Amino acid sequence: MIGRLNHVAIAVPDLDAAIAQYRDTLGADVAAPQDEPDHGVTVVFITLPNTKIELLHPLGEGSPIQGFLDKNPSGGIHHICYEVDDILAARDKLQASGARVLGSGEPKIGAHGKPVLFLHPKDFTGTLVELEQA
Amino acid sequence: MIGRLNHVAIAVPDLDAAIAQYRDTLGADVAAPQDEPDHGVTVVFITLPNTKIELLHPLGEGSPIQGFLDKNPSGGIHHICYEVDDILAARDKLQASGARVLGSGEPKIGAHGKPVLFLHPKDFTGTLVELEQA
Repeated sequence: MIGRLNHVAIAVPDLDAAIAQYRDTLGADVAAPQDEPDHGVTVVFITLPNTKIELLHPLGEGSPIQGFLDKNPSGGIHHICYEVDDILAARDKLQASGARVLGSGEPKIGAHGKPVLFLHPKDFTGTLVELEQA
Repeated sequence: MIGRLNHVAIAVPDLDAAIAQYRDTLGADVAAPQDEPDHGVTVVFITLPNTKIELLHPLGEGSPIQGFLDKNPSGGIHHICYEVDDILAARDKLQASGARVLGSGEPKIGAHGKPVLFLHPKDFTGTLVELEQA
């Protein structure tokens, strides 16, 4: 069911420092920060030859990654995103298997403008998994 | 400097449960477990179209992932691995930038039979980064 690894998302407390680490120290292809007010984050896309890294930094009050940074002050990997062909079919199969879909269970439009869902970390090896319809 | 994302490594407390989640629930291509006694882990490779996920489970006494699982009993993402063309050149550039290489600084032969180094998480957004010479 799952296809490509779309991205690995890393929450960072200091966006400028993280950009410098990836651009200057690791020599990666780092884009300019993009504010995503609907998602409460500023995102920096890092393009690797086969996938993407996304740096996430809180934007505004009540950012969904603030709690994670409170628990992990140095930052850390927040979630991984797998692509699926049909997000509703994927959701139905997951729920039939007993896996918990976060929120209402209805896909939302993610930061890439595509339908996404998040799965409960306890059902997937302690890892927050995002599914994105490719 | 960094190239492809070689893999995302996820430490898991229950290997059979994690295999079932990825193979049956997520429908991924999951290989048989491989014991790596030199590295203190049993590894399960999950092949995605563009990269790999590696499930890590402690093997024997003093496994390098036991401490992580003690802190994260449900499991979680343990490290990410980027490919480099020349690991000694990468190490020298990183150390000149002030980044800390774990251990002696000399590459070791990793689970794939290729030279690897690990970088200090505090220097890279709280994320344990492995570099592997591709």
